[in-house]
Amino acid sequence: MEQVIELSYALDTFYLLMSGAFVMWMAAGFAMLEAGLVRAKNTTEILTKNIALFAIACVMYLLVGYNIMYPAEAVNSIWPGISFLLGADNTAAEVIMVNGDSDPDNNSVYSNMADFFFQVVFVATAMSIVSGAVAERMKLWAFLAFSVVMTGFIYPLQGYWKWGGGFLDGLGFYDFAGSGVVHLCGATAALAGIILLGARKGKYDKEGNITPIPGCNLPLATLGTFILWMGWFGFNGGSQLIISNVSDANIVAMVFVNTNASAAGGVVAALIAAHILFGKADLSMILNGALAGLVAITADPASPSPLLATIIGMVAGVIVVFSIIGIDNLKLDDPVGAISVHGVVGIWGLIAVCFSNPEATFIAQLTGIVSIMTFVFIASFATWYAFKLIIGIRVTEEEEYHGVDYSECGMEAYPEFTDNSKG
Amino acid sequence: MEQVIELSYALDTFYLLMSGAFVMWMAAGFAMLEAGLVRAKNTTEILTKNIALFAIACVMYLLVGYNIMYPAEAVNSIWPGISFLLGADNTAAEVIMVNGDSDPDNNSVYSNMADFFFQVVFVATAMSIVSGAVAERMKLWAFLAFSVVMTGFIYPLQGYWKWGGGFLDGLGFYDFAGSGVVHLCGATAALAGIILLGARKGKYDKEGNITPIPGCNLPLATLGTFILWMGWFGFNGGSQLIISNVSDANIVAMVFVNTNASAAGGVVAALIAAHILFGKADLSMILNGALAGLVAITADPASPSPLLATIIGMVAGVIVVFSIIGIDNLKLDDPVGAISVHGVVGIWGLIAVCFSNPEATFIAQLTGIVSIMTFVFIASFATWYAFKLIIGIRVTEEEEYHGVDYSECGMEAYPEFTDNSKG
Amino acid sequence: MEQVIELSYALDTFYLLMSGAFVMWMAAGFAMLEAGLVRAKNTTEILTKNIALFAIACVMYLLVGYNIMYPAEAVNSIWPGISFLLGADNTAAEVIMVNGDSDPDNNSVYSNMADFFFQVVFVATAMSIVSGAVAERMKLWAFLAFSVVMTGFIYPLQGYWKWGGGFLDGLGFYDFAGSGVVHLCGATAALAGIILLGARKGKYDKEGNITPIPGCNLPLATLGTFILWMGWFGFNGGSQLIISNVSDANIVAMVFVNTNASAAGGVVAALIAAHILFGKADLSMILNGALAGLVAITADPASPSPLLATIIGMVAGVIVVFSIIGIDNLKLDDPVGAISVHGVVGIWGLIAVCFSNPEATFIAQLTGIVSIMTFVFIASFATWYAFKLIIGIRVTEEEEYHGVDYSECGMEAYPEFTDNSKG
Repeated sequence: MEQVIELSYALDTFYLLMSGAFVMWMAAGFAMLEAGLVRAKNTTEILTKNIALFAIACVMYLLVGYNIMYPAEAVNSIWPGISFLLGADNTAAEVIMVNGDSDPDNNSVYSNMADFFFQVVFVATAMSIVSGAVAERMKLWAFLAFSVVMTGFIYPLQGYWKWGGGFLDGLGFYDFAGSGVVHLCGATAALAGIILLGARKGKYDKEGNITPIPGCNLPLATLGTFILWMGWFGFNGGSQLIISNVSDANIVAMVFVNTNASAAGGVVAALIAAHILFGKADLSMILNGALAGLVAITADPASPSPLLATIIGMVAGVIVVFSIIGIDNLKLDDPVGAISVHGVVGIWGLIAVCFSNPEATFIAQLTGIVSIMTFVFIASFATWYAFKLIIGIRVTEEEEYHGVDYSECGMEAYPEFTDNSKG
Repeated sequence: MEQVIELSYALDTFYLLMSGAFVMWMAAGFAMLEAGLVRAKNTTEILTKNIALFAIACVMYLLVGYNIMYPAEAVNSIWPGISFLLGADNTAAEVIMVNGDSDPDNNSVYSNMADFFFQVVFVATAMSIVSGAVAERMKLWAFLAFSVVMTGFIYPLQGYWKWGGGFLDGLGFYDFAGSGVVHLCGATAALAGIILLGARKGKYDKEGNITPIPGCNLPLATLGTFILWMGWFGFNGGSQLIISNVSDANIVAMVFVNTNASAAGGVVAALIAAHILFGKADLSMILNGALAGLVAITADPASPSPLLATIIGMVAGVIVVFSIIGIDNLKLDDPVGAISVHGVVGIWGLIAVCFSNPEATFIAQLTGIVSIMTFVFIASFATWYAFKLIIGIRVTEEEEYHGVDYSECGMEAYPEFTDNSKG
Repeated sequence: MEQVIELSYALDTFYLLMSGAFVMWMAAGFAMLEAGLVRAKNTTEILTKNIALFAIACVMYLLVGYNIMYPAEAVNSIWPGISFLLGADNTAAEVIMVNGDSDPDNNSVYSNMADFFFQVVFVATAMSIVSGAVAERMKLWAFLAFSVVMTGFIYPLQGYWKWGGGFLDGLGFYDFAGSGVVHLCGATAALAGIILLGARKGKYDKEGNITPIPGCNLPLATLGTFILWMGWFGFNGGSQLIISNVSDANIVAMVFVNTNASAAGGVVAALIAAHILFGKADLSMILNGALAGLVAITADPASPSPLLATIIGMVAGVIVVFSIIGIDNLKLDDPVGAISVHGVVGIWGLIAVCFSNPEATFIAQLTGIVSIMTFVFIASFATWYAFKLIIGIRVTEEEEYHGVDYSECGMEAYPEFTDNSKG
């Protein structure tokens, strides 16, 4: 019988590790998506940001974030314990961090290290959302400094509220894999950033005209979307945490089906919406439709039927098209549509839970949305503002004109394909 | 003991879900392969087709196709039951669709939802084959309309003949993972399409000269091939459906080894064949050699020894080179070689089963090939023809000259890299 | 109880197969990395080399290499038995190769075919390292001929010393997943090659000036790095070979965490080092920092704490920056930095084992490093030299000027993006 428990432990550990590897792969998806949607002259820098933020997230979450989000002891349900960070003895947490737990009688049913792996690759997702929104005009080091604060402190604190057992969890706020904790959180931090940063030069003129700035490499953007779609099977599929019995296995299978169905619904709806609005099959809108479907279903991929999941994705696909247009009209310059995809649609996903999950309440969902947005916006705005005062967050006009690749990275992304005089 | 059954159920479910995620990833492979092999001016449109067809396949197969291919009750072995689609009570099927099945005493040994997931991602593969063949001159919406019919009706009906328990299964037709049901089916639909569509302008002149039209981005095409190679481990490896005992685990392992061996054989043979014919290491032929090896072994990756699998792949690699040249000489314009890779080599794969699998008979294999080709060709031709009459399937000459990206999608794939005056 | 053994067998088999699929995926990573770091005119050829070497490795390792590396009977601990290759009866090995082993009482605890699959995809990694170093001036067929010798004989022989039970294993040389056996081996073969091959034209002039030759497509190089990062979870994670009990599952989980942590450490350190040295966030150095972190931890990803793994990666990230500069100053032209990433850092990884693993000794690690380097260098140098005499290994100056894509493959990688007159 003990061998059966060991096998169960092994299967759940393997399942978490594979899921985590898929989530790590999403970092490549964000990098390709964003590199495809900016101009050639800003491509090296956005690639640098994406790989660097992933690395920073891993280091910061190891050092600080994991202990904040899943504290050994909490001060209360709003504020996690930070005694460990202040030097207190916290052997148990250290043992978990360093050794995993090999006692099958322990209440841990999978390797603690596998849990840490799954959590640590999650963190970068929230930060990747920010990098797209502030593209093409932010100083690289200001962005990296913000990512230290975001992945070490801001994300883990609000993550604790829900997944660490804090007050949102107590209130019955439902967020299976992070429409709120990850996506809305990232989008809100991005919103605070672009308000302080301002729009790219040439995007909006004084007469109120909006100049579209097309992305330079749509195959990359499409590849990034497919990578994210694939990685999301780990993101949502792994969030059940356990698969080793019939009940959990059925839930995980339903999560895979619904995640796929919602993304498909998002594509179809965005395709039709774009055709009606523009008379064209606007690929960038279609890609955002797929991502919108994925974000929306993330709050609860286990409860809806596949048909309802498809519909939730379709609504998300329509919302994202109108949201991108609306945010552009507000003169908030979000080059990749990240705030619409992850923020506006994240809210839709959290509310849609009420339609399929009898345990969710509208008031709890709303409390979660407001709590996350308020805290993340204030904390992010203050952080961005501090960096703006200390080191500046925007490159000079001349650097922006020539592209941040030169000023920040010293190299072009496509030295043989682009005519440098194009500007 | 019950816990062991639960674990077995969980492992098989997880195995199917991971396999399905790999198959979904093949959609990215087709998108990159085709985007790399067309000209820059038609790239946005082919990306749009690839992501849209995947989404349409998921929606149509959920609504209609799954019930046709695996009907709760069949009219007979040629025609599946469609009572469910006509409004009859079909609670059992609905329960399966929505809840999975949590009773371990049931004969279902894995989550029904995991089975649905694995099947639904398969469907798009057949349709992806079509998108490459009709590239660079077809109307987007005609293609999407065809994909509705193909993924909802044509593919599931002939799939029922083999995998749903129809007459081809009864005859002993052997097709492990779909050299016929998926690849030959897709290639036949593509053939019907390009006959009605005609060749790209400038491809063949009146004197019978053939002008090669090189793809614009070979790294993308190579990436797509590697993605497909990786995804095929899910496509073939998952088709055993069960892995939770020694016998099945050994078969799945053999499938992985042989799938890889055959692809490797295809690469080596195409490399040598191209060197002999052209004096050059023709990369596009080598990529098609890899895919040919994969298609050929798909009919039976479990029976051959790894050495025989390598040889089956080598023969496929030679066949594909000559087939691509031959089809071009027939003035059938297939920009990516899809009909050769998936159709001609698919037939080779179905026949090669006879060399390694004592249960297969030549007559059954031939019956399967003829049945699938006849039905799919007639049904596809009729469908394409109807769309040709109603909405037209070909863009105007001017649209083709400027590229379908403008006319269909309203945006360029590489706005900064290409000189628009090149045409 | 037997069913539990079967389940355990199935889980370990599945784990090895998934790990192998991830390692196969690394072939795509090397292809994209190298294609991104060479010039456009040499891109088709490097893609061709990468897919062809993978195929050749699979065929040669099936025919010869696996039997050398894991011989049924060994002559002694330095020289494996080759009686099988000389025609002796070797039924046992053949049975293993062809059927897998279905007897649960056997000491084999997973499918032998799954083991073969995991080993065969490993081989290409060593050879992929070579292809980057000799890029842009080597004859394609000389490279492919070398890959036959390397994957069939050189790699398996030194692999036998450690993993096949040869003398390095007996000495206590510690190399978990191949910092030495795979990465140092590949880098040493590459070093021998570039010494005989010479630098690219225009790289070093008579006054000792070094002209940087920038890569043409940094998004591809970044994608390749992310692919390798993901694939490394299979490379290191699968090298435990067993996951089906608590102890092994915990080790595998630790391997995932440490592999990720070390890569993250490499990125952060290379970012900072490049900023200090060049005043810019040099993306190519950052990518090499990630790979350096991965190579360094490969020798022992199971013993260090995650914090120590991060530090091992950081040291690797600094080493790789200085090594790339140093090797360039030695006028050894390595276009992608492969010798620094895989060789110099591979040595660091093997030595770093002594800091975390009490079982490792400095003298054993040093013996392993010297043995592998000496043998591989001499064997590779002799092989390269023989090919140089027989068929030549370097393209003509004119071919190099116009790009090896024309001379070797007869097609451009980006026919529409590059101005051919640029040279």
